[in-house]
Amino acid sequence: MLDLTDRRSVVIAFDHGTEGAVRGGEDVPRMLDAIARSQADGVLLTTGLARRFPGEAGTTPAPAVLAGLDVPVFGTGIGTGAKLVTTRQLWSPADAAAAGAVMCKMLLPLGLEDADAWADAIARIGRAGAEAARASLPFMVEPAFWGPAAQQSDKAILDAARLSVELGADVLKVPGPRDPETLAALVAWSPVPVLILGGTPRDGADFLGQVVAWMAAGASGVVVGRNVWNRPQPTAAIDALVRAVRHGDLDGARESMAAAGEPLPSAALRYDQEEEQG
Amino acid sequence: MLDLTDRRSVVIAFDHGTEGAVRGGEDVPRMLDAIARSQADGVLLTTGLARRFPGEAGTTPAPAVLAGLDVPVFGTGIGTGAKLVTTRQLWSPADAAAAGAVMCKMLLPLGLEDADAWADAIARIGRAGAEAARASLPFMVEPAFWGPAAQQSDKAILDAARLSVELGADVLKVPGPRDPETLAALVAWSPVPVLILGGTPRDGADFLGQVVAWMAAGASGVVVGRNVWNRPQPTAAIDALVRAVRHGDLDGARESMAAAGEPLPSAALRYDQEEEQG
Amino acid sequence: MLDLTDRRSVVIAFDHGTEGAVRGGEDVPRMLDAIARSQADGVLLTTGLARRFPGEAGTTPAPAVLAGLDVPVFGTGIGTGAKLVTTRQLWSPADAAAAGAVMCKMLLPLGLEDADAWADAIARIGRAGAEAARASLPFMVEPAFWGPAAQQSDKAILDAARLSVELGADVLKVPGPRDPETLAALVAWSPVPVLILGGTPRDGADFLGQVVAWMAAGASGVVVGRNVWNRPQPTAAIDALVRAVRHGDLDGARESMAAAGEPLPSAALRYDQEEEQG
Amino acid sequence: MLDLTDRRSVVIAFDHGTEGAVRGGEDVPRMLDAIARSQADGVLLTTGLARRFPGEAGTTPAPAVLAGLDVPVFGTGIGTGAKLVTTRQLWSPADAAAAGAVMCKMLLPLGLEDADAWADAIARIGRAGAEAARASLPFMVEPAFWGPAAQQSDKAILDAARLSVELGADVLKVPGPRDPETLAALVAWSPVPVLILGGTPRDGADFLGQVVAWMAAGASGVVVGRNVWNRPQPTAAIDALVRAVRHGDLDGARESMAAAGEPLPSAALRYDQEEEQG
Amino acid sequence: MLDLTDRRSVVIAFDHGTEGAVRGGEDVPRMLDAIARSQADGVLLTTGLARRFPGEAGTTPAPAVLAGLDVPVFGTGIGTGAKLVTTRQLWSPADAAAAGAVMCKMLLPLGLEDADAWADAIARIGRAGAEAARASLPFMVEPAFWGPAAQQSDKAILDAARLSVELGADVLKVPGPRDPETLAALVAWSPVPVLILGGTPRDGADFLGQVVAWMAAGASGVVVGRNVWNRPQPTAAIDALVRAVRHGDLDGARESMAAAGEPLPSAALRYDQEEEQG
Repeated sequence: MLDLTDRRSVVIAFDHGTEGAVRGGEDVPRMLDAIARSQADGVLLTTGLARRFPGEAGTTPAPAVLAGLDVPVFGTGIGTGAKLVTTRQLWSPADAAAAGAVMCKMLLPLGLEDADAWADAIARIGRAGAEAARASLPFMVEPAFWGPAAQQSDKAILDAARLSVELGADVLKVPGPRDPETLAALVAWSPVPVLILGGTPRDGADFLGQVVAWMAAGASGVVVGRNVWNRPQPTAAIDALVRAVRHGDLDGARESMAAAGEPLPSAALRYDQEEEQG
Repeated sequence: MLDLTDRRSVVIAFDHGTEGAVRGGEDVPRMLDAIARSQADGVLLTTGLARRFPGEAGTTPAPAVLAGLDVPVFGTGIGTGAKLVTTRQLWSPADAAAAGAVMCKMLLPLGLEDADAWADAIARIGRAGAEAARASLPFMVEPAFWGPAAQQSDKAILDAARLSVELGADVLKVPGPRDPETLAALVAWSPVPVLILGGTPRDGADFLGQVVAWMAAGASGVVVGRNVWNRPQPTAAIDALVRAVRHGDLDGARESMAAAGEPLPSAALRYDQEEEQG
Repeated sequence: MLDLTDRRSVVIAFDHGTEGAVRGGEDVPRMLDAIARSQADGVLLTTGLARRFPGEAGTTPAPAVLAGLDVPVFGTGIGTGAKLVTTRQLWSPADAAAAGAVMCKMLLPLGLEDADAWADAIARIGRAGAEAARASLPFMVEPAFWGPAAQQSDKAILDAARLSVELGADVLKVPGPRDPETLAALVAWSPVPVLILGGTPRDGADFLGQVVAWMAAGASGVVVGRNVWNRPQPTAAIDALVRAVRHGDLDGARESMAAAGEPLPSAALRYDQEEEQG
Repeated sequence: MLDLTDRRSVVIAFDHGTEGAVRGGEDVPRMLDAIARSQADGVLLTTGLARRFPGEAGTTPAPAVLAGLDVPVFGTGIGTGAKLVTTRQLWSPADAAAAGAVMCKMLLPLGLEDADAWADAIARIGRAGAEAARASLPFMVEPAFWGPAAQQSDKAILDAARLSVELGADVLKVPGPRDPETLAALVAWSPVPVLILGGTPRDGADFLGQVVAWMAAGASGVVVGRNVWNRPQPTAAIDALVRAVRHGDLDGARESMAAAGEPLPSAALRYDQEEEQG
Repeated sequence: MLDLTDRRSVVIAFDHGTEGAVRGGEDVPRMLDAIARSQADGVLLTTGLARRFPGEAGTTPAPAVLAGLDVPVFGTGIGTGAKLVTTRQLWSPADAAAAGAVMCKMLLPLGLEDADAWADAIARIGRAGAEAARASLPFMVEPAFWGPAAQQSDKAILDAARLSVELGADVLKVPGPRDPETLAALVAWSPVPVLILGGTPRDGADFLGQVVAWMAAGASGVVVGRNVWNRPQPTAAIDALVRAVRHGDLDGARESMAAAGEPLPSAALRYDQEEEQG
């Protein structure tokens, strides 16, 4: 079960299918089953896919479902590398609850070029947050520095987190700041738990080092996608994260991650490019 | 009855009337009656026309109705060959159910030029999927490579299918990939049944060969329109499909298709042109 | 009473007031009273005006009310002869029923220049049709070749009628095709009754000749506006139509129409100009 | 009490506050109190202000409240003299009823430059009229020749009145036509009562002469704003109108209007400029 | 408790987080706690943040919550100094009540460049006011001279206040006019209480002098943000305001404000720049 107040959490993000058949994420039944049988605390899916999560799959409680309510829209195609144009909300918190979710999530899209698209995105977040509160469903907001004008920086992460709180976020999912002091300040200043997102697939040992540093700075957990399922053995990668985040066992974590293998070669997603600029 | 889990299905698509009085599809009562008396498993109609389907017409159960909720919009006229501009949702899943449908369907329009039109189309699919789930009505999504910027390919079909699943599709209706391996992979990776659409009217024997190959690769059935009613004897064409798909009887199927006759000369529809580019 | 299955019907269209104080249509109480006391089967009014129809006015049952749900928008003024820009739906089928209507109607505006306006018009028709079905109110669709790009032809009438059926029309109101064969084919192919609209005011005897030809080709009746109330004696014109349509009495009809007088000189409406191009 | 069927009515319009602190209309409590204690039949306020009308203030029944549902939008500021761009509906008939109104009102904005703004305005009027009917609240429509392309004329007033009736008006509020015959025809042709608006502040005796002529031509009353509260003694001006309209006492009316004083110097409002063009 | 009829009120505005992590406003828990333990009558928060206000924190009743329903949108980023483009309403009065608020608030954005954005803002205020009335929640309107074309002046404040009343405001929050006579006239003419906003952080003694002058002119209280929390000791600043506003103790107030310290150096917000032009 996901419990952000009691312990640090590992959430697996498997919601990149809006970018198409991304390498490692094509085989939906296999990946859902692997997550269901893992020790992860939660799994982040679009609300559309959440109904297909298998629920109790083994002898342990299955990870809780966190459901994304919106999708980013990159140009007019699927996985084409076009710029972020807007986001759209497809589902309501009530839809998420009906699909079995214990939390719902929306994007705060930074760096859009159109002011009305930005204004609409803000408005949707505020409304969805109020609706989630009525449905007693915790509401996560994720500042996404994916727009063509986005300039990710530690200051920008703080600003976006502050706005997210103002808009009604119950939980934050943010990129890891470069300076550990920034993350510590964010955790101190935020009235709600802060989770760090995994980002671009990269060297396993380095990545785990970052994860442990985020935990040391006070983060409540991680939300990791391609650093799990873009590796040959996703189950081992989840195991590595559980060891690092929940048990602080960096050595054991590195061992599991080595077993998971290095990221499969695949096309960078649009948001990786933005991340590199950050 | 339509039962996608139990057996391979033949669905007749008679929803091209949004393109006007298309050759072979002008005489609505005659064609609806022919389908109603056939061995087809289902008939795909717009929700607006679904109420006119005659229901039990003979001694056998009538085909189940699948209702389209949206229409493609080509320019500002009817059947003019203008480019795909957008789609519009006209009906809700509840409207489809009220019209007697057992499944509803929407288009995922690939290759649009306007990003907001694309974003809105995605949003409508997600919302309709959630509404269909609330109404316990299975929801089919059809990637349609009809936009001026569409580039149909096996990879693009996989991407579109993956996105459709993410958006909440319970059933997929896709163009047949060129490579049988692609279709096999799609069927393996998809958590929901995959139906293949018939496309442009063409030589009967060739078409049936493709149908059998699709079945061999694991497809759950076909959705065929003009390859049925654009022939002089639509009833025989349906019979051919039933033999090929449900009984694997290619010889019998070819015999029936020969009786159905070759496609009537008629203006190519806009989406045929796209298909040829694919 | 209006009964499209039992007998051929005469409907008087008095819904041109959206074009302003059109010659012959200025005096609302006088015209509503004349229709109410006539033998017409129905009267077509905007839903806004429908509440003012006097109901039982004489010893015979009053004509049934058919309520228009939408209005055409020509430029930014009233009766200025500007081009058709869009349509707007002002009322719901429930509003029509509340105003006493037994049927509701919407325009299918052909020849618009803006694809979104066209798409929206299609979507509104589909939705209104479904809502009318829920309210058990028959739904009439009228293809209107009034847009700047409209090209009225027999083929275009067939295409528009076919699309209207697809969108959920229960009754069609179409311009009379030039070729009687076309009308016969339309009646045969249409799963719903076909009414023919009267159009531009013209010579009474010629007009009645056309009416009788439409009936001979299988039309279910006529919907006539200015050919009634744009004449000095509208009551006599209605009588002429009743004789021609319901009783097939062309001689008697011509006598009554002669008593009605020839059309008053008045400015042509925008849609007459389109009609002439047709 | 307002009773348009029984007697000619005097309605005071105090809804110009959307143009800001207009001379004579700044002091809201003083003016509302003066109207409440007067013999006027009604007071026209925005729905937003209607809740503040004091109700029974003296020994006589207070004027009935007529609530405006919409506001004109002139450019992007307040009282700047910018051109009319659009109107917006802010309140529903139910809101008006909740604020104590016995009638609600909307503008029909003539002379807009944008066809969609015009189309939307028409649509809102139709919908509000239907909603008012459901709430059993009479619905007044006011053709407003305030747009940059407006050309006020007697013919244009007739056209606008005819359209307003078509859209569902229960009462008309129109500018006084120049030719008394036109007003007489309008009253004869209209199935609903016709009130005349006061317009630009002007010489008291001349204004009262016009008022009496309007009554002679059959108008059901007047709706007067700045010709009341733009004078030093608004109470006396109301008294003058009551004498002229309700009692036909032109001499007594002129005496009271003299006591009211001539209009205070103030900036002309945007719609005065339009009026002068008319 | 907030009681605008009984005594002059001090409201602390802590709703600038939509501009990001503004200096002094980053540490949300610390500031909310300080306000909760203060003698302020009220605290103004976005509805999204209102749920996090700690309620009864000490031995005295906590300040009442006033909830903002909308946010200003400056360009496409957070705290970038871009021009005001529009506003968006994120929450309903019912959302505000559910978050524990006793009053709700919206912006009237002056000086926008786009007429539709201005029209929409007006419409939202009217609708929200009616909804607040239905929810029995007092509704505050704040004219905000933040648009690129805004020209703040005493006359403009009067105009904006008059429009706000027309739109349904129950309480006004306005910038302090330069001329005390203007404020006295506004208070006399307004049918609802008038609160003055604090504005740009500035010298403590000067600021308190202005506050006392506003009270002398009849204002019902102040709404102060950065002049409180942009100082090193916000608690002392609140104490200063309570002394000045509620007890008229200017000497004591200045003593407390000296203890609060002068404003921390920080980037001017976009609306400060506008204020300076005023």
